[in-house]
Amino acid sequence: MKLYGYFHSSAAYRVRIALNLKALTYEQVPVNLLKGEERNPIFRQLNPQSLVPVLITADGQVLTQSLAICEYLEEVYPLPPLLPAEASGRARVRALAQLVACEIHPLNNLRVLKYLKRVLGVEEEAKWSWYRHWIAEGFSALESLLTDSPDTGRFCHGDAPTLADVCLLPQVFNAERFQCDLSRYPTIRRIADACAELPAFAKAHPAGQPDAA
Amino acid sequence: MKLYGYFHSSAAYRVRIALNLKALTYEQVPVNLLKGEERNPIFRQLNPQSLVPVLITADGQVLTQSLAICEYLEEVYPLPPLLPAEASGRARVRALAQLVACEIHPLNNLRVLKYLKRVLGVEEEAKWSWYRHWIAEGFSALESLLTDSPDTGRFCHGDAPTLADVCLLPQVFNAERFQCDLSRYPTIRRIADACAELPAFAKAHPAGQPDAA
Repeated sequence: MKLYGYFHSSAAYRVRIALNLKALTYEQVPVNLLKGEERNPIFRQLNPQSLVPVLITADGQVLTQSLAICEYLEEVYPLPPLLPAEASGRARVRALAQLVACEIHPLNNLRVLKYLKRVLGVEEEAKWSWYRHWIAEGFSALESLLTDSPDTGRFCHGDAPTLADVCLLPQVFNAERFQCDLSRYPTIRRIADACAELPAFAKAHPAGQPDAA
Repeated sequence: MKLYGYFHSSAAYRVRIALNLKALTYEQVPVNLLKGEERNPIFRQLNPQSLVPVLITADGQVLTQSLAICEYLEEVYPLPPLLPAEASGRARVRALAQLVACEIHPLNNLRVLKYLKRVLGVEEEAKWSWYRHWIAEGFSALESLLTDSPDTGRFCHGDAPTLADVCLLPQVFNAERFQCDLSRYPTIRRIADACAELPAFAKAHPAGQPDAA
């Protein structure tokens, strides 16, 4: 398999973790988002969304959108599972994953920060307040959901990592990278630490990728 | 089942369509987002995310996040299917759904527009340019993906509606509501029209909901 990504992309980071958890081997093709390589015509032909990640599967299919890619991996390579067996647990894990992937990350990714600055002329300080606002909104909710549920274990759902953790750790990495205060989220902190200890998560860390500066 | 929603919420609209496609009956509980009722302590206790929709299942479980709810419905009430049978088709449908749910809608929902205006002091005109920018970015990509694929049929994937259409129609409704030019997206337009003809989609239209003004 071949993964088009970028070391700092949170969405690509998720897919690296999922691939590693399932012990799948993959070649990485860097797409430098800071240089705007996602707008390159060759890449756009692969993915008209101009977004990473893109996964080329073992049989040559082109897959986009990190959560859709993770669900594909779960269906084709079911072990170890990233989702619980029963429907209600699966719904909980997917909701926690989507809280990150639909409510926090889309508001804070590079193309949005660029628009705020270049088009709306938002000052640096206000831009980072925006960033921290959406982290705080999302993490406050996530912290409540994790703290209040008996389903939370060593990880977001039970004692093995799931799709929720696959989304959580990259978001915590981003939050720390931009100096967000995480002291109010002890459960998120504890789970992120538990994730970071696992080789599948550690190997996916941005700093260890071939395109890391 | 009980659905906490808001007639104009795009995410609640998706769940209404999915419930209708599966011919499930449900009671609606309106949460008025314009009045900020999603911040009401009673609702926050139900969903600390302060977001609609929330679905209370037949056995009393509290589900959040529209796509997680749709996947739950698909697993518990498999017919008619909202996802194709084979993994590659499922990945395509989920990616199209997420293009809407992760790349367009999160940037344009009410809480974000409020932040732009109230906190960043963005003028009305610039706010609507922002809105239309993310619609154009997302719909251009979606139009390419739909036009270029032999898998596209009467609907986004084949000739029966899927999760991709469940997300598409509410986004088209929103785009039209805010005067976005859709003439550049003839395939999106054609598919949205095909959806709108189906009773499951028509019955879910915001104008027909109990809380419509």
